[in-house]
Amino acid sequence: MDFTSLLDFSKAGGLVTAIAQDATSDEILMVANMNEEAFRRTLETGEVVYWSRSRSKLWHKGEESGNVQKVKGLYIDCDGDVVLIKVEQIGGAACHTGRRSCFFRRLDGESVQDVGVQVFDPDEVYKK
Amino acid sequence: MDFTSLLDFSKAGGLVTAIAQDATSDEILMVANMNEEAFRRTLETGEVVYWSRSRSKLWHKGEESGNVQKVKGLYIDCDGDVVLIKVEQIGGAACHTGRRSCFFRRLDGESVQDVGVQVFDPDEVYKK
Repeated sequence: MDFTSLLDFSKAGGLVTAIAQDATSDEILMVANMNEEAFRRTLETGEVVYWSRSRSKLWHKGEESGNVQKVKGLYIDCDGDVVLIKVEQIGGAACHTGRRSCFFRRLDGESVQDVGVQVFDPDEVYKK
Repeated sequence: MDFTSLLDFSKAGGLVTAIAQDATSDEILMVANMNEEAFRRTLETGEVVYWSRSRSKLWHKGEESGNVQKVKGLYIDCDGDVVLIKVEQIGGAACHTGRRSCFFRRLDGESVQDVGVQVFDPDEVYKK
């Protein structure tokens, strides 16, 4: 069947929200967007492809760093505007800061704690 | 400190994405939106308050069903447009269908499997 019919791309200008969750640890790694083409390519290739709003183009996650996300499971929420992807994160880090997860800032009472696990040096990986 | 300064409400018309994850099982329960007021109320009350786009009003989750979400942890992603909330889901179900999680549709090869755990009967709870 055509799984794109399960998604409602009309709510947010042609995009749905996409969540990458580590298939083993269940840690949430990152959140980004997909348009229909990104969703199709993710299904076809078995690697996660997002739509980059800032660059207005398809974004095959890991295309620069090699840290691709292998699809291990795909779920759609009740109203069809969010895709949950269980992934194997190659390289062990999803965040552009080199941390395992983008959710490394924990609000802790009156302060913010950096609870991130640093996996790589972004200056090294992205050759900036 | 004022945690709202960590969030970028400008990207999506005054809203950020909010993910509720079960604090114990790490299952993703639901995804919705927050405006600044919803985020503030969540911090102040310790129970999750979203912004309902369809009803254009603050949505104290569980106000009808009693199934509120108690805040157990709050995280913000690297670019400040997503809030991750670890919650205790009172009543055991987050989805309006009565299932534990909104992500009950698994794309499985060529078909869709309902892998949801039914916790309550929505007709009973919402008295529709």
